[in-house]
Amino acid sequence: MKRKIGTSTSLNKRHTNHKSLLISGYHSVESILIHRPEIIIKLFISRSGDKRGVRIRQLATNNGISFEIFDSKNIDHIAFDSNHQGFAVEINNPGFLSEKDINPRLKNLSSSRVLILDSIQDPRNLGACLRSALAFEFDAVIINKDGSSPINEYVFKTSVGAILNLNIFYVTNLSRSINTLKDIGFWVLGLDSYGEGSISSEKFSLKTAVVLGSEGSGIRKLVKENCDHLIKIPISNKVESLNISVAAGIVMHELKKQHTN
Amino acid sequence: MKRKIGTSTSLNKRHTNHKSLLISGYHSVESILIHRPEIIIKLFISRSGDKRGVRIRQLATNNGISFEIFDSKNIDHIAFDSNHQGFAVEINNPGFLSEKDINPRLKNLSSSRVLILDSIQDPRNLGACLRSALAFEFDAVIINKDGSSPINEYVFKTSVGAILNLNIFYVTNLSRSINTLKDIGFWVLGLDSYGEGSISSEKFSLKTAVVLGSEGSGIRKLVKENCDHLIKIPISNKVESLNISVAAGIVMHELKKQHTN
Repeated sequence: MKRKIGTSTSLNKRHTNHKSLLISGYHSVESILIHRPEIIIKLFISRSGDKRGVRIRQLATNNGISFEIFDSKNIDHIAFDSNHQGFAVEINNPGFLSEKDINPRLKNLSSSRVLILDSIQDPRNLGACLRSALAFEFDAVIINKDGSSPINEYVFKTSVGAILNLNIFYVTNLSRSINTLKDIGFWVLGLDSYGEGSISSEKFSLKTAVVLGSEGSGIRKLVKENCDHLIKIPISNKVESLNISVAAGIVMHELKKQHTN
Repeated sequence: MKRKIGTSTSLNKRHTNHKSLLISGYHSVESILIHRPEIIIKLFISRSGDKRGVRIRQLATNNGISFEIFDSKNIDHIAFDSNHQGFAVEINNPGFLSEKDINPRLKNLSSSRVLILDSIQDPRNLGACLRSALAFEFDAVIINKDGSSPINEYVFKTSVGAILNLNIFYVTNLSRSINTLKDIGFWVLGLDSYGEGSISSEKFSLKTAVVLGSEGSGIRKLVKENCDHLIKIPISNKVESLNISVAAGIVMHELKKQHTN
């Protein structure tokens, strides 16, 4: 195990590239050490000897992960936000699945829930959607590569590490992916404020995919046309729409509830 | 109607105080002009003559509101974030209700939904909760004054102006407010990951208040003890909790659904 005491001169502000992410905060770092230690490039721990520090060091040691110890204030120079709690980790961007994996991965499931996110650009909303997808045991999340927020530090943090435990499909063509899902028995619903159906009375198919669009413009026209049916969440006319991660949470909760009742 | 062409020298970065808020963005500014023109102190519009500009000027003129016209880039110096779309408005902080208003405002309702937020510190989560409370036609939101995020620009923006249409009670003692609600016939539920009841099977009373705590620490002990019953949202054990505004949205949706079915 390599162990090195860092000095402030070695602590230049680090920028992540497409291949790596710099994640900070106790829960995020703990989650990576538990679930995906193999993607860790470098681990930074503050000098503090409190319970959390002991826990992270123990996890690192158990996994044969080398780490560097710094004064807590020096982690400010490494972490992408100030709320790092003394922990940061550089990881390889976790690999994602592609369009061609949809069929083999999902065709043999007799009951399945899939979330499709069309061009969600706000990283916090994207992260919260991923967190809910894991909470409601979705088998897959399909995201369009172009037009969506990249999976960056903010997404990771607001997903509270859910990214590490989800099957995320990164695709170039959402409509084609929807048609692949239909071919293997999925019923594809779009959430739309003008939807004819209501989430409160919808009877979901055993294999259901739900599409949500961006907060500003909703699901894109062509993607919408490929949905089997459009549904809405009934809300007051005093409000134009719900926050997109709230809407996604409500739909996923309703779907999970019916699938498990 | 006062109309003044602004110069860059008059455009110092403005800071809001407790009594005023500086709100930017087309939808927020439009919402204030429609719902609460009386709280406007000053309106700033970009020089652009597009549809949105015409709409905002028309609304201002109709309401006898004076405005200043600037180059769009100069609004950068006024607005609190760069996503102002060429519109900003300084408003008096909209007045909130207090603890003593709970009884007279809510006692005569035969059916009612109330949201109680215990120490929500993230302004974006607070704003999203308020947006959902209006969407699901809640009669009141009760917030503890100390320990919660102040109602600032970020809260306003993420609430998409819902603040202007909600009865918000700002109180010093949440437990006392809960007891007031009980006295006037409310059943008070707390959302807690160890709750015995489940949101999916709960039969809600006609007058129901729901308490949500902060993301880090949940509902405070004493507040929790004052709840009639604790319920949870069933989620996978791979996730510790949902984002607080997502959880709030799910509970409010379920409550609204039962109250209107």
